[in-house]
Amino acid sequence: MTFSQFSIEKAVSDELFAKKIQLKIDQKTKPQGSLGALERLALRIALAQGSEHPKLTHPHILIFAADHGITQEGVSAYPKEVTAQMVLNFTHGNAAINVFSRQNGLALRVIDAGVDADFSGIDAITSAKIGFGTKNFLYEDAMTEHEMQQAIQHGSRIIAEIHEEGSNVVGFGEMGIGNTTSAAAIMHLITQKPLEYCVGAGTGLLALQIQQKRAVIAQAIANARERHRTDHFSPSEIVRIVGGFEIAMMCGAMLEAASHRMMLLIDGFIASSALLLAAAEFPQIVQYCVFAHESDENGHATMLRYLGGEPLLRLGMRLGEGTGAALAYPLVQAAVNFLNEMATFDSANVSTQVLP
Amino acid sequence: MTFSQFSIEKAVSDELFAKKIQLKIDQKTKPQGSLGALERLALRIALAQGSEHPKLTHPHILIFAADHGITQEGVSAYPKEVTAQMVLNFTHGNAAINVFSRQNGLALRVIDAGVDADFSGIDAITSAKIGFGTKNFLYEDAMTEHEMQQAIQHGSRIIAEIHEEGSNVVGFGEMGIGNTTSAAAIMHLITQKPLEYCVGAGTGLLALQIQQKRAVIAQAIANARERHRTDHFSPSEIVRIVGGFEIAMMCGAMLEAASHRMMLLIDGFIASSALLLAAAEFPQIVQYCVFAHESDENGHATMLRYLGGEPLLRLGMRLGEGTGAALAYPLVQAAVNFLNEMATFDSANVSTQVLP
Repeated sequence: MTFSQFSIEKAVSDELFAKKIQLKIDQKTKPQGSLGALERLALRIALAQGSEHPKLTHPHILIFAADHGITQEGVSAYPKEVTAQMVLNFTHGNAAINVFSRQNGLALRVIDAGVDADFSGIDAITSAKIGFGTKNFLYEDAMTEHEMQQAIQHGSRIIAEIHEEGSNVVGFGEMGIGNTTSAAAIMHLITQKPLEYCVGAGTGLLALQIQQKRAVIAQAIANARERHRTDHFSPSEIVRIVGGFEIAMMCGAMLEAASHRMMLLIDGFIASSALLLAAAEFPQIVQYCVFAHESDENGHATMLRYLGGEPLLRLGMRLGEGTGAALAYPLVQAAVNFLNEMATFDSANVSTQVLP
Repeated sequence: MTFSQFSIEKAVSDELFAKKIQLKIDQKTKPQGSLGALERLALRIALAQGSEHPKLTHPHILIFAADHGITQEGVSAYPKEVTAQMVLNFTHGNAAINVFSRQNGLALRVIDAGVDADFSGIDAITSAKIGFGTKNFLYEDAMTEHEMQQAIQHGSRIIAEIHEEGSNVVGFGEMGIGNTTSAAAIMHLITQKPLEYCVGAGTGLLALQIQQKRAVIAQAIANARERHRTDHFSPSEIVRIVGGFEIAMMCGAMLEAASHRMMLLIDGFIASSALLLAAAEFPQIVQYCVFAHESDENGHATMLRYLGGEPLLRLGMRLGEGTGAALAYPLVQAAVNFLNEMATFDSANVSTQVLP
């Protein structure tokens, strides 16, 4: 399955409808604009759903997990075994994302997109394994065209399933030692920002190691350009050459979700890199997105600006797993709830503004 | 009851205990520091409660409502009748704070601290009425010494009640047309910041009206200094001369809450002005505070810096009612939950960092 097989409508762009929603927001018993970002969020969700009475149903967090050949270059503070170990930690309910999903009523699904471990027989893990980790993209393409298409297809299928079960809002999380390296390379290739803006500490590199990571990415891209005899790659080529299985699968999942007009909760640096790819083909996908938080990972703030996204939380977090999405969810729910439940000045017999 | 009758312990300042909590945080299965502000919050709550296993029980939002004589000077965009009308709106469950408290499982109590309306017979309103609004503080003291002491006493009593019922965390909200004028005057007198830094749009004044509001406050303070033949006022004098019944009552409530080592969720500009007063007498009260959000009201960011408070949310809100506290509560709960529920690297058999 390829990017071009998706079809994503624009969120309602009917100005009259947008004005109607804004009027509804302004008639609530509060000074106009006084709920700040929540008012903009309520409008966005109403437009995405094309409804004056938007609803959030069966919210999910999906964690896409995979391993990365690029870890051979010493680009991560943690050993690659941690990917598989954390996937098991998720199934035991003891990681940060379990705690936050449980607290906020989000169903959690852990997806093996391509971890270098055998999870067969573990029911709590959704198998969508494309392979046992990508190739080292310093020297060769991270995955084949077939693998990339399979990843998109699996992402699409998983969303179709939860949509079928009645979910209309999904948070995108990931686990994959080494995946900030892929995400930084994607960011550089899509946004054309210098690598210094794109590469960060990941799970905890120091300055010299970040320089080394940057050098690895620069060399990998130079090698890929030589190998493919081109300076320009399409989004699907980018994810195939420098991406990860979990990133490609997230792309497919995001595109499928937007095609159903679901709301997409975008977590941090890696989830946003998948969105960069999807939005490069379908800019209208951003209308279905809620930007959960601004990660502390270098590059994420720039990414958000590039996407025109306004993050709900700025807590200096950089954990991944979808934790930002899970923590931001009550604010998303609050935006919908105030729109549906608050009284108007009229209905509550509250006097309106006299000044100015 | 006066400020000096309270007794507030310092939160645990035992360095060994603090290190123990930090170690517990660092052993969780996540890169060190990767939960950002939530990690600092977890530490703060553990120290406030003196416990490695902090708990949040029976969370409450209290809304203290009162009217203000200063509204005679045209300092608000809304007519003063809105205070009483909104109090009734709260009792019907249809205001923003009702929606957010319901959603996040917070018990809501609406307190008549001095609204210019008769609510007798309405069970949903806790009566603590000091009077039918304060005097116009442009010309005379907002309240008498006796009224101020009564307000402190009622605030103290209400917290003692909910503490008795098992609550250990309380958000402070308010409703009172005109009360940003009192809060700005308090801020100016406590922090010594120029009035330009302290006075804002409140419910929606334009630039010229804000100038007028500033002039009213400047004149009121000049008048008070002349009337009392002094340039310096103590915190209890400040709240008596330029404060409101709801602000004085919040002061008493905050002092009582900290004396029980409860966690205080500080909402926006007006709640923070009450805290400024309390902290001027008992600086250690800040150790029990969680700063829910940075309000869009001019002055609040400066106030937070003065108090050394790190706000959890920055959503450009300026509604009051305790809405910031109610919206931030899930993050507070998340800080406690990750500390109590997450696995350690050891318990989950996850490898630790290899670099640097």
